[in-house]
Amino acid sequence: MAANQKVNIGVIGAGRIGKLHIEHLATRVPGAQVAAIADVVLPAAQAAAAQFGVPRATADYFELLKDPEIQAVVICSATDTHARIIQEAAAAGKHIFCEKPIDHDLARIDQAIGAVERAGVKLQIGFNRRFDPNFRRVREMVAAGEIGEMHILRITSRDPAPPPIEYVKVSGGIFLDMTIHDFDMARYLTGSEVTEVYAAGGVMVDPKIGEAGDIDTAIVTLYFANGAIGTIDNSRKAVYGYDQRVEVFGSAGMVATANNTPDAHTLANASGVHGACPLYFFIERYTEAYIAEMRAFVEAVQNDTPTPVNGNDGRAPVVIGLAALQSYREHRPVKLSEISA
Amino acid sequence: MAANQKVNIGVIGAGRIGKLHIEHLATRVPGAQVAAIADVVLPAAQAAAAQFGVPRATADYFELLKDPEIQAVVICSATDTHARIIQEAAAAGKHIFCEKPIDHDLARIDQAIGAVERAGVKLQIGFNRRFDPNFRRVREMVAAGEIGEMHILRITSRDPAPPPIEYVKVSGGIFLDMTIHDFDMARYLTGSEVTEVYAAGGVMVDPKIGEAGDIDTAIVTLYFANGAIGTIDNSRKAVYGYDQRVEVFGSAGMVATANNTPDAHTLANASGVHGACPLYFFIERYTEAYIAEMRAFVEAVQNDTPTPVNGNDGRAPVVIGLAALQSYREHRPVKLSEISA
Amino acid sequence: MAANQKVNIGVIGAGRIGKLHIEHLATRVPGAQVAAIADVVLPAAQAAAAQFGVPRATADYFELLKDPEIQAVVICSATDTHARIIQEAAAAGKHIFCEKPIDHDLARIDQAIGAVERAGVKLQIGFNRRFDPNFRRVREMVAAGEIGEMHILRITSRDPAPPPIEYVKVSGGIFLDMTIHDFDMARYLTGSEVTEVYAAGGVMVDPKIGEAGDIDTAIVTLYFANGAIGTIDNSRKAVYGYDQRVEVFGSAGMVATANNTPDAHTLANASGVHGACPLYFFIERYTEAYIAEMRAFVEAVQNDTPTPVNGNDGRAPVVIGLAALQSYREHRPVKLSEISA
Amino acid sequence: MAANQKVNIGVIGAGRIGKLHIEHLATRVPGAQVAAIADVVLPAAQAAAAQFGVPRATADYFELLKDPEIQAVVICSATDTHARIIQEAAAAGKHIFCEKPIDHDLARIDQAIGAVERAGVKLQIGFNRRFDPNFRRVREMVAAGEIGEMHILRITSRDPAPPPIEYVKVSGGIFLDMTIHDFDMARYLTGSEVTEVYAAGGVMVDPKIGEAGDIDTAIVTLYFANGAIGTIDNSRKAVYGYDQRVEVFGSAGMVATANNTPDAHTLANASGVHGACPLYFFIERYTEAYIAEMRAFVEAVQNDTPTPVNGNDGRAPVVIGLAALQSYREHRPVKLSEISA
Repeated sequence: MAANQKVNIGVIGAGRIGKLHIEHLATRVPGAQVAAIADVVLPAAQAAAAQFGVPRATADYFELLKDPEIQAVVICSATDTHARIIQEAAAAGKHIFCEKPIDHDLARIDQAIGAVERAGVKLQIGFNRRFDPNFRRVREMVAAGEIGEMHILRITSRDPAPPPIEYVKVSGGIFLDMTIHDFDMARYLTGSEVTEVYAAGGVMVDPKIGEAGDIDTAIVTLYFANGAIGTIDNSRKAVYGYDQRVEVFGSAGMVATANNTPDAHTLANASGVHGACPLYFFIERYTEAYIAEMRAFVEAVQNDTPTPVNGNDGRAPVVIGLAALQSYREHRPVKLSEISA
Repeated sequence: MAANQKVNIGVIGAGRIGKLHIEHLATRVPGAQVAAIADVVLPAAQAAAAQFGVPRATADYFELLKDPEIQAVVICSATDTHARIIQEAAAAGKHIFCEKPIDHDLARIDQAIGAVERAGVKLQIGFNRRFDPNFRRVREMVAAGEIGEMHILRITSRDPAPPPIEYVKVSGGIFLDMTIHDFDMARYLTGSEVTEVYAAGGVMVDPKIGEAGDIDTAIVTLYFANGAIGTIDNSRKAVYGYDQRVEVFGSAGMVATANNTPDAHTLANASGVHGACPLYFFIERYTEAYIAEMRAFVEAVQNDTPTPVNGNDGRAPVVIGLAALQSYREHRPVKLSEISA
Repeated sequence: MAANQKVNIGVIGAGRIGKLHIEHLATRVPGAQVAAIADVVLPAAQAAAAQFGVPRATADYFELLKDPEIQAVVICSATDTHARIIQEAAAAGKHIFCEKPIDHDLARIDQAIGAVERAGVKLQIGFNRRFDPNFRRVREMVAAGEIGEMHILRITSRDPAPPPIEYVKVSGGIFLDMTIHDFDMARYLTGSEVTEVYAAGGVMVDPKIGEAGDIDTAIVTLYFANGAIGTIDNSRKAVYGYDQRVEVFGSAGMVATANNTPDAHTLANASGVHGACPLYFFIERYTEAYIAEMRAFVEAVQNDTPTPVNGNDGRAPVVIGLAALQSYREHRPVKLSEISA
Repeated sequence: MAANQKVNIGVIGAGRIGKLHIEHLATRVPGAQVAAIADVVLPAAQAAAAQFGVPRATADYFELLKDPEIQAVVICSATDTHARIIQEAAAAGKHIFCEKPIDHDLARIDQAIGAVERAGVKLQIGFNRRFDPNFRRVREMVAAGEIGEMHILRITSRDPAPPPIEYVKVSGGIFLDMTIHDFDMARYLTGSEVTEVYAAGGVMVDPKIGEAGDIDTAIVTLYFANGAIGTIDNSRKAVYGYDQRVEVFGSAGMVATANNTPDAHTLANASGVHGACPLYFFIERYTEAYIAEMRAFVEAVQNDTPTPVNGNDGRAPVVIGLAALQSYREHRPVKLSEISA
């Protein structure tokens, strides 16, 4: 399509993240136009359409796939539908933005990626953190050689509050639901592939999470193809807010990034010097990143250039997550080569 | 008008700040609709209209004032037209948002405010910094008594680069053009009125500024009605970026705010520990504040509530600026009561 | 004397600051030996002598001046005795370290300096802050041209608690007692002389300070010989501790220094992110500076080199302080040339 | 001995750390008196004695053990002599301060501790970091329940430069030489015992370290008896200086500590905002901690109270270090219960 033409987009799924993308596409992404919204819960689609002036709402996303005016879809439906819809959308010739993860099952991921490749459409996976100014700056400095040869990666990633137990049960577990973002960060920041992991963890935040078969606190050791090593620490509950810090250390220095706060005030009084907590959670913390990833997707469609987070980038962190899960269960380091579709 | 109805807005002036407001009104202020743009340079109005999907562009702002569908105008024209257009818009029954300053002449300011009062329309002046999250937080803490009784106010306000000399010549001088924002901040943060000032300054950045009859570096001492004192330091050129810090000190503590940066990275290497410069200038630094002031204006119109920065708030900093100018010229402290229309 | 020989020192005055110097000389200044302590309150001298293993204690400081084994005296007696003892010590051929200020009266200061010059002995004044690593680093960077040509100096200097009212009454007032350190800093950091001042202030901390004829809160504007301007803000009571910050801004950048804290911890919890208050007061904050100034004095005596803070450095801030006092009283800017002995 | 009596101390070993302790004992520990210095290199002992006014220097430390006037010894000799000298000093009835580690061999450690217990003398091990104000503050806050129940410990500990290869060869390896301090920190900060470790690492700094059979970069996962988990990352070479940070995260918050710097300056210029590197290495970073540990030892002797870092505190980190070494070599998690004397 012409680079200056608006991309007509159909959004599939009008839940929390779907509405977020609709708002951004409608107001903050000049090259995009939301043509239709589909949600199995029709009133959800209708409400979002009304709020953002979208002309069409439907309960059946096939309507979007069949519409020749729609060039691209943004998939925000339940995780277990991602792989299937990717295949269907690819078959319909639509470019695809899909929320992470593609699936928890490698075979299904590979089917989806295969369908995309056969159809020659674009696929971008929603690893939004890559578009955050802090992490982007760290990546740029690492890539520019500012820290020399990389030796150690350190990621702290803690949520402010655990998800509902019902979600935990279908989430795929902490490694595939939460740490997966950090695995993506690890690949993004270092430009190297993870080859092996060792995962430790436990249930410290809420015993119900344990009863649901998951853990809520974890430390994962990473081995990289370039010889470096890394460590990720996760918690489902940091009472002070969303804690999102990374640090890359190398032969010539170290680059790190602090948390973002709602304001830069400092209060000094008799009890100490006080500042604001980090921004509460991903909606607040990553607004600009969500917008930037959509702009990048729309530009890739407009300019017919590769998307910045492709199918393989969607697959690789799942492999790391499956290895971490196995490592935790078997209490031993697990090579990624042990994980297969 | 009904609270859930969109406010039809006419924007007068499509220069840099005008385009900024048009973009925000079009994309970030849900309650607003830009109905028309006027600019004496018609192509400027037309280009902005095309870019943001505004249906009408004209060289004659009277068209906007005459249009019964337009409820409010946003005045972004040259400073010397502000007072006159305010009167005309008030006479036409339009609610008014006007960029600062209303005028450099108190008599004309008073005529404009008088016209607004007689017409019973709303007037909001564009002191955007009041809507910045940092300064807002400081104000809230001061108002909440977090620092007890206020003793000292300290403002550092330095631009990254001086304006063109042609602009300097018509700007009214540093106190009415640049420090005026800090005078507004002083009133806003303390909730008290300035009663007297003492201004020191000089030409240190560029001799051409001196040749144009202005200075580029200043320190202003403030006396407040509540007994507190304050100091403002200004420079037209901080090579490290836009330096915008305030501090309020009192009997129970101190609250201050740091600069905002484009990212929160830290690079440590053999030569030290390094971070990003402050955001470059007002466009970058105050984007959210510009949006928030427009939302506040639109909400005041929708809900028929007072605007948060009224005519008197537009007048008072001009009085302080005139007193500062006189203080600088006469090399003595000047009481605000010496300044009259 | 030989550079490797210990300097025998007599300390005159064993009050708080005297004991501090005795401890440092006895334990932290390798080139010094405290030979005797004099205090009009003999038990004070005896107690200090016993504590730090000093062989002699006396109520009569003339004993020290007459002792040929003593090469230098450290004067820590009441301020109104400084000028006289300097003259007596100079006449006795002793090198002299004297606490600030020399006197509040310029004529007496000049007599003291004259006596020192005639005797050819060394004189160092106790402006300890010059030896603080933070301020030293700022000075070095300014002197090295890191900020280009200096435009603005900003000093914040706030005590944690006011002195006793009895002390306030004989202190010479805030400008000669407290701000005098900042006037010295202004000269030290900029390498330029102050030529004119404007002082604002008030009684905000304690009405008793006002009843004693003094003020407790002040802002002083400074004009420098090099064309730059500056501002100092003072309070006698910062509830969060000793607030000692400086900032020098110039054509190529800005260098500033933050407060020191007892530790570098950060606590993040649901109410915010919290750190330690600044070190409480000058004893805690400037310990290393007090030691370094004594080392510098002893080395100047050993090596027969100029002292780093000489008589003129002791006189100049008094002139600035007298000008500030006059400015405050007469409510007008005062040139230093108006002040005469 | 009487609480107000000075403790006569013999120092065994006058190398770098020995001289450091001698200086502190001579000048900064009021309750101590260095009675004699022993070093197999007699001139080293003599030079230190001359420098700090110590009356006796000898090549034979048995002279010190035999001297009834000496109540305590400070052992700073080569690591492989520690256990033996502890036993000899205990047999001689001397209280003992011994540099870490006691030994690399658990059987010899147990012999040394047994000898100390039989003799009823005091033993303090030189884990100096426990006396650092930053770590002490973190420990106090954890102990006070400020972070609730502990979930995650994170330690970053990086040296500015690797030791000489000759030292590496006899050091016992990174886990027993360098990480041992972090293992001690882990026990100190959490108040819990480590039960299992997993160690990853490699040779990234200098291939010669690999040729010497050691690694220079490591990440160690810790499991604690209280259910928490932790991670330590180490490097032998951080070009920006000694990087010593800890963080304890729990159910109610997080407490962390930053690095110390030689000064608190900030330089802002066109290229960014710059501050000082961390203090270079342990001598600079831990001066106050070294003094505080000596004061604590001397007070324990004077007051006949337990030492704050006892024999078991010296033994436990060696067990963790041996487990880490085995984990690294066998590429699997290792329980501390697998390690035996």
